[in-house]
Amino acid sequence: MPGLFISLEGIDGSGKSTQGRRLAETLRAKGRTVTLTREPGGSAGAEEIRRLVLEGATDRWSAETELLLFTAARRDHLEKTIRPALDRDEIVITDRFADSTRVFQGLTRGDLAATVDRLHALMIGVEPDLTLLFDLDPATGLSRAQARAGKELRFEDMGLAFQEKARAGFLSLAAQHPRFRIIDADGDEDTVATRVWQAIEPRL
Amino acid sequence: MPGLFISLEGIDGSGKSTQGRRLAETLRAKGRTVTLTREPGGSAGAEEIRRLVLEGATDRWSAETELLLFTAARRDHLEKTIRPALDRDEIVITDRFADSTRVFQGLTRGDLAATVDRLHALMIGVEPDLTLLFDLDPATGLSRAQARAGKELRFEDMGLAFQEKARAGFLSLAAQHPRFRIIDADGDEDTVATRVWQAIEPRL
Repeated sequence: MPGLFISLEGIDGSGKSTQGRRLAETLRAKGRTVTLTREPGGSAGAEEIRRLVLEGATDRWSAETELLLFTAARRDHLEKTIRPALDRDEIVITDRFADSTRVFQGLTRGDLAATVDRLHALMIGVEPDLTLLFDLDPATGLSRAQARAGKELRFEDMGLAFQEKARAGFLSLAAQHPRFRIIDADGDEDTVATRVWQAIEPRL
Repeated sequence: MPGLFISLEGIDGSGKSTQGRRLAETLRAKGRTVTLTREPGGSAGAEEIRRLVLEGATDRWSAETELLLFTAARRDHLEKTIRPALDRDEIVITDRFADSTRVFQGLTRGDLAATVDRLHALMIGVEPDLTLLFDLDPATGLSRAQARAGKELRFEDMGLAFQEKARAGFLSLAAQHPRFRIIDADGDEDTVATRVWQAIEPRL
């Protein structure tokens, strides 16, 4: 069977990481080889860049410099992790990809949206075959995200109004690109996992 | 007097760092305020990115990822060091800028030249007012560079044939852009400093 490149997107606390692990387990139980990865990070070099971007003061980097660092991390992730796995006909599931950059960088600095798209076209040029958008009321997402807060709080710190705008940004992307499937992320883990499977199964 | 943005370029061991320090001293003795800086690096964030790029194995990053990291460092350097100094009407002297990326990335992977130019136009968009190219026989430059070798050996390690190509790359850029002044870097420090001053004085 050929490889499949799936990205999981959504606001913080939408449950996409938990559902990604469950989806990987389900696929493996059915005999598929799965690479489960995440952004920013997902390869040794990209994880180092992740630390550079997400640790330290929020205003340490301008939106443009942060965008370049995220793109460098994505390029490394693509070269070292995603492409080799797809070449081995694996299913790649990544927790966030370029849509997160489109939404979060676009929110931080709206005038950057065109630059984000041009930089992606120039240096990345790849989209997932399928993007699952975990859609959830931001108040629910934020309380979930805060319950498991670690030291990487950049985006969660920005509060409810920010998450509302992020949700709208993701829904807007989903309306533009047929590769999106919107998953209702409100519900217990098993219920959401069933919705995920219904979205994935037709593509296998 | 208005600010002036000067870059120093050339192969390793061409004496540009020494001459940059002397030029800064001369200008300060004449009452000008000078910011003397370098790339990759030149701001706190860019120095961190420099360490990420230059330390570790040579093949740690692909040419594309390295290009993105250098561009992130340049953007930070421009925002935090170069632009603020020019806004204060200072003279900025930077030991390397975008021409080094054009030459060295172009040499490592010739097919990247167009990408280098597009990325510069998209994310940097600034050129120096004046670029001093320290031109020197690569055999002389290489022996000078090796005499002061530290742990950052990426480019010097690549040997004489590489430096020959880098020299040709710099001379080709100089032929295309009127902002270049070619400085004959063969000679003792005082002789070269006099040549530098002759190139700078008409622009003050």
